[in-house]
Amino acid sequence: MIKEFSIRKSVEEVEEGQTLQPKFDQNNLIPVITVDKSNNEILMHGYMNQEAFRLSMQTKEAHYWSRSRKCIWKKGETSGLTQKIKEIKIDDDQDCVIFKVELGGLQASCHVGYKSCFYRKLTSGEGQYIDKLEFTEKKKVFDPLQVYGNSPNPTKL
Amino acid sequence: MIKEFSIRKSVEEVEEGQTLQPKFDQNNLIPVITVDKSNNEILMHGYMNQEAFRLSMQTKEAHYWSRSRKCIWKKGETSGLTQKIKEIKIDDDQDCVIFKVELGGLQASCHVGYKSCFYRKLTSGEGQYIDKLEFTEKKKVFDPLQVYGNSPNPTKL
Repeated sequence: MIKEFSIRKSVEEVEEGQTLQPKFDQNNLIPVITVDKSNNEILMHGYMNQEAFRLSMQTKEAHYWSRSRKCIWKKGETSGLTQKIKEIKIDDDQDCVIFKVELGGLQASCHVGYKSCFYRKLTSGEGQYIDKLEFTEKKKVFDPLQVYGNSPNPTKL
Repeated sequence: MIKEFSIRKSVEEVEEGQTLQPKFDQNNLIPVITVDKSNNEILMHGYMNQEAFRLSMQTKEAHYWSRSRKCIWKKGETSGLTQKIKEIKIDDDQDCVIFKVELGGLQASCHVGYKSCFYRKLTSGEGQYIDKLEFTEKKKVFDPLQVYGNSPNPTKL
């Protein structure tokens, strides 16, 4: 039995109130931005359904909804790359969450082997950004094959 | 005429390649996390369609898709709260973007009057997070009525 979230009744209460009233989207998900508490680096951008949000709140361990595997996903279950939640923030209209976390295991977060999922940036050229990416992490933290074995890749075309 | 983005052909190229191949969701949007470049604080979480992404890349000024107003929204057009894009990052499966920005105007970003949209956190009580919010920004940076006048509030129930 999942504890229900409070019903949204007024914009003023959502924006200025002290009651958690999260908004889930048409797929019943809410986005989460996961941040390394030690240096404010953004590690990943995931999604939660109501159950994953409640599990994250109750255990202080990050739980997400895997859109590719269509199941609740306790971060680190397979990989040991756990995330202990030290702070949860929510935005003005309560449709997006931040987790500030402490990393467990290999101190990384991305299934490709990098610390952060955001290991590339757009190249800046002649007053605009172009379609070419540059790597900002030069070296992987771990070998995904060793950590995940032959698990299916969550990245979809 | 919007310049098309490159077509996604392989997971390997999407994850490990140097070509921008963004994925837009079922509503033709991609989420953007906007960060204050000066201190890595997360300011907001928005969305772009293809046109807003191209405009952001071409002008280095943040453009979003307003889901409530259903139009391209150049940040700061009404409010003067502009965002100059100093870096754009993209994640492993290229379905989420980070803007690192310099703030213009009142050095704030949130339509409610705070610097960041994430001005509240969940209360931590007895080993778990509870449904009560605490304000982490104690004072508004500006009065929304003075900045936005009677423009409709973008927050929806």
